Amino acid sequence: MRDATQPLPRRLLAEFLGTGLLVAVVVGSGIAAQQLSPNDIGIQLLENSTATVFGLAALILLFGPVSGAHFNPVVSLADWFLGRRSGKGLTAPDVGAYAVAQVAGGIAGALLANVMFDVSAGLSTKHRASGGHLVGEIVATAILVALIFALVRTERGAIAAPTVGAHIGAAYWFTSSTSFANPAVTIGRIFSDTFAGIAPASAPPFIAMQLIGLAVGVAITLALYPDAGGRADDVVVPHTH
Amino acid sequence: MRDATQPLPRRLLAEFLGTGLLVAVVVGSGIAAQQLSPNDIGIQLLENSTATVFGLAALILLFGPVSGAHFNPVVSLADWFLGRRSGKGLTAPDVGAYAVAQVAGGIAGALLANVMFDVSAGLSTKHRASGGHLVGEIVATAILVALIFALVRTERGAIAAPTVGAHIGAAYWFTSSTSFANPAVTIGRIFSDTFAGIAPASAPPFIAMQLIGLAVGVAITLALYPDAGGRADDVVVPHTH
Amino acid sequence: MRDATQPLPRRLLAEFLGTGLLVAVVVGSGIAAQQLSPNDIGIQLLENSTATVFGLAALILLFGPVSGAHFNPVVSLADWFLGRRSGKGLTAPDVGAYAVAQVAGGIAGALLANVMFDVSAGLSTKHRASGGHLVGEIVATAILVALIFALVRTERGAIAAPTVGAHIGAAYWFTSSTSFANPAVTIGRIFSDTFAGIAPASAPPFIAMQLIGLAVGVAITLALYPDAGGRADDVVVPHTH
Amino acid sequence: MRDATQPLPRRLLAEFLGTGLLVAVVVGSGIAAQQLSPNDIGIQLLENSTATVFGLAALILLFGPVSGAHFNPVVSLADWFLGRRSGKGLTAPDVGAYAVAQVAGGIAGALLANVMFDVSAGLSTKHRASGGHLVGEIVATAILVALIFALVRTERGAIAAPTVGAHIGAAYWFTSSTSFANPAVTIGRIFSDTFAGIAPASAPPFIAMQLIGLAVGVAITLALYPDAGGRADDVVVPHTH
Repeated sequence: MRDATQPLPRRLLAEFLGTGLLVAVVVGSGIAAQQLSPNDIGIQLLENSTATVFGLAALILLFGPVSGAHFNPVVSLADWFLGRRSGKGLTAPDVGAYAVAQVAGGIAGALLANVMFDVSAGLSTKHRASGGHLVGEIVATAILVALIFALVRTERGAIAAPTVGAHIGAAYWFTSSTSFANPAVTIGRIFSDTFAGIAPASAPPFIAMQLIGLAVGVAITLALYPDAGGRADDVVVPHTH
Repeated sequence: MRDATQPLPRRLLAEFLGTGLLVAVVVGSGIAAQQLSPNDIGIQLLENSTATVFGLAALILLFGPVSGAHFNPVVSLADWFLGRRSGKGLTAPDVGAYAVAQVAGGIAGALLANVMFDVSAGLSTKHRASGGHLVGEIVATAILVALIFALVRTERGAIAAPTVGAHIGAAYWFTSSTSFANPAVTIGRIFSDTFAGIAPASAPPFIAMQLIGLAVGVAITLALYPDAGGRADDVVVPHTH
Repeated sequence: MRDATQPLPRRLLAEFLGTGLLVAVVVGSGIAAQQLSPNDIGIQLLENSTATVFGLAALILLFGPVSGAHFNPVVSLADWFLGRRSGKGLTAPDVGAYAVAQVAGGIAGALLANVMFDVSAGLSTKHRASGGHLVGEIVATAILVALIFALVRTERGAIAAPTVGAHIGAAYWFTSSTSFANPAVTIGRIFSDTFAGIAPASAPPFIAMQLIGLAVGVAITLALYPDAGGRADDVVVPHTH
Repeated sequence: MRDATQPLPRRLLAEFLGTGLLVAVVVGSGIAAQQLSPNDIGIQLLENSTATVFGLAALILLFGPVSGAHFNPVVSLADWFLGRRSGKGLTAPDVGAYAVAQVAGGIAGALLANVMFDVSAGLSTKHRASGGHLVGEIVATAILVALIFALVRTERGAIAAPTVGAHIGAAYWFTSSTSFANPAVTIGRIFSDTFAGIAPASAPPFIAMQLIGLAVGVAITLALYPDAGGRADDVVVPHTH
C-alpha cells in the first residue's frame, strides 16, 4: 500500500498510534477481565475478545485512510510481495519503516495499558509455545492474510474493518494460541505481565510460525485470486485521494 | 451458482477450505470453551456461538467470490433446484463435486482443531438425536435456506455474510439441537470427541431432518418469492467477473 | 406499508411466519439459557438477548421485502396513522389482518419452541406487571416506533434490520421489563411457562403501556421529522418492485 | 455541525432526548446487570457494555439526521473548533445551547433509569478518580474525538453509529475508567447510586481529563487529516436536506 497523497511520516505516525492502541486494547481489556472476572478464564477471554473485535474495527477505520491500517509487519510484507508487479504495494524500505513503527507502537501500547491499570512494569512470564499453539498461529495468520487480500482483490476493502475484527474475534477462540498472528503485537505483549502477556522466550517461535502463516496465506491468495497482485494498493482500506 | 470465470477445481478448493475452516471454528472454539469455562455449559455455548458468528461471516467473505461460499450440501442442492429453469444454478454433477469437497473439508477441519488443541483423535460419543432436536434441525435448516434465497431473490447477496452468521448465532440458541443445519458439518463433527462433536449414530437422523428442512425452506422461498429461480446465480455472495 | 406487487395473503403469510419465528427465538433461547446457565439470571438474559438481536435482524431481512417485516401490531398501527395523508401506509383493514396474523404467529412460535425443547404446554406463571416495568414498556415501545420511522423518513430503511435488532438488544437490559414492546409477542409469550414467558394477568397492562408508548413514539417522530407521513411506505425495509 | 433545514429548538430536543436515553441505557443496564449477575463484576460490565454498544448505535441513527447526534459537549466543542474556518461547524452560542441540552438530558436519563428500576433517588457514592482512571479518560476521549472527525474528514459519516458504538464497547474494557469520555454523561451518572454511577467528587477530575483528551484528539485529527476543518459539517452523521 502506498498513497501518493500521504507523506511517509504521517503514515508511520498512523501505524505507530494504531498498533499501539491495538495492543493497549488487547492488554488493557485483558487486565480488566482478569481483575473483574477472577473465577472463569473463559469469561476473561470472552471479555478480552469482545473488546478486541470492537477496538480493532474502530482503529482500522480511524487510521486506514492514512496508512492502510496494517498494524502488522506480516500484512506489510504481503502487501509488498503481492504488489511488486503492479508497482502499487509498499516498497521494501517502506516495509522496514512500517515494521519499526509497528513494533515501537506495540511496546508503547503495552506500557500505556500498564499505566492505565496501575500495573507495575515487567516482562510477561506467560509461556505459550506448545505444539498446538504453534499450529494455531500458522492457521490464524494464514487466514488473516488471505482474508485481507481477498477483500482487496475483489474491491471490498471498505468492509475490511468489521471483517478483520470478526476474524480475530473467532480466532481468539478457535486457535489454541488465541491468535496473536502479528509480530509487532507479539513483541508488544511481552511488556505486560498480565492476562494477554507472552514470555520473551515464547515470542520467537510465535513469530516464526506467523511468518510461515504469511507464506501459506499468500499461497492461498494466489490460488484463489490469481490476479491479486494488480490491486494490492487498497490494503487494508480504500484510500482517500 | 456457477461462475464462468472460475474453474471448477478452484471452486472446489474454496469449498474444501471454507467448510474445513468452518468446522475448525466450531470444533476448536468448542474445545476452548469447554476447557476455559468448565462450570457453566451455557457460557460454553455462548463462547462457541459467538466465535461461530464471527468466523462464519469472515469465511463467507473470504471464499464467496470464488465458489459462492455454500459450505453446505443442502445449500448447493437448493441452488441446483431453484436455478434449473434459468440455467444459472449449479449443475447436478457440480452439486456432487461440491458435496464431496464439503464433506472432505468438514472432516479435515475437525482433525485440524484436534491438532491445534492437542486432543487425541477419536469419534464423538455425544448422542444428540432426541425428538425435540430433530424438529430443531428442520427449523434451523429451513430458515437458513429461505434466508439465503430471499437475499438472492432481492439482490441483497452482498449482506449474506453477516446475515447468515446472525441466523446461525441465533439458531445455536433457539433450536434445541444447536443448529447443525449442514450435512457436511455434521459429518465433520463426528471426528472430534469434544464439546461440538456428534456421535456417529446421531448423524443420519440429523442429516435426514436437514433434508426435510431443505424441502421446507425451498417451499417457503417459493411461496414468498415465486420468481426466485431466475436469480439463483448469486448464491451466497455476488460474484466478481 | 403497502406494496402493490405483493398480494395480501402472501404478506400475511410473511407476518405470520416472521412473528412466529421471532417468538420461537425469544422463547426458545430463553429455555436454552435457563437450562444451560442455571446459576446466573444475568447470563441467562445475556444469552437470550444476544440470540434475539441476531435472530430478529435475520428475520427482518428474510421477510421484509414481502410484508415490511412489522411483526408487531404497534408498528402496523403507526404505519397506518403516519401514512394516511400520503395514501401509502397500510389501510385500516390491512392493520386488522396484519394484527391477526401476528398474534396467531406469536402463539404458534411459542408452541414451536415448547416442542423443540420438549417442554409441556402450559400458560406462563411469571408475573411481570410492576410499576417500573410498565414505565419500561412505554420507553421501549416509544423508541422502537420513533427509530423505525426516523429511518423511513430519512430513506435509511435498508439498515432497519441491524438497527432494530440493536435497539431491542439494548432494551432487554436498560428497561426493567426486558422490552416486550409488542402486543403480538406479548400474547405469544403467555403460551410457554419458561424463562421468557409472561403470566396472562400481566399481558393486558403490558399491552396498554405499549399503546401509550406507540403514542409517545409517534409524537417524537412528528416532532423530529415533521414530514414523516409522506414516506411511510418503506416500513420496515425498502421493498423490491 | 449546523443544518440550515433544522431549527435550533428541534436540534436541542434531539440532543436532550438522545443524551437522556444514552444515560438511561448506561445506568439502566448497569442496574439490571448488578441485580441479575451479583457474583461477577466482569459479567456485569460485559452486560453493561454490550447494551451500551447496541443502544448508542441505535440512538445515533435515531437522532443523527436532526442534530448530528453529538450527545457530548466535547464533540460539540471539537465541531465548533474544527469547523470555524469553513463556517460549517456549530457556532459558539450553539455549543453552549447544545451543552445545556446534553447535561439536562443526562440528568433526566439517570432519573428515568431509577424510575424504571424502582431505585430510590440519590447521588452516587462510587469514587472513581484514581491516577490510572484519569489517564484512561484522556485516552478514551482522544480516540473518540479523532475517530469521529476521521470519519467526517473522509466522508464516512454514514458508518459513525456502529463505529462509535464499537469504540465505546472496547473502551469500557481497555481504559481502566470504563470510558466515560463525555461531560454530560458524567454529570448525569452522578444521579444514580448504582453500578454505573460516579460520586460527585470524582466528576470534576473526570471532566478535566476529558477536556485534555479533547485537545489530544483534535491534535491527532489535525496531524492525520490536516484539512479536516472543511468538512466538519457532517458530524456525527450525514444530514438530510
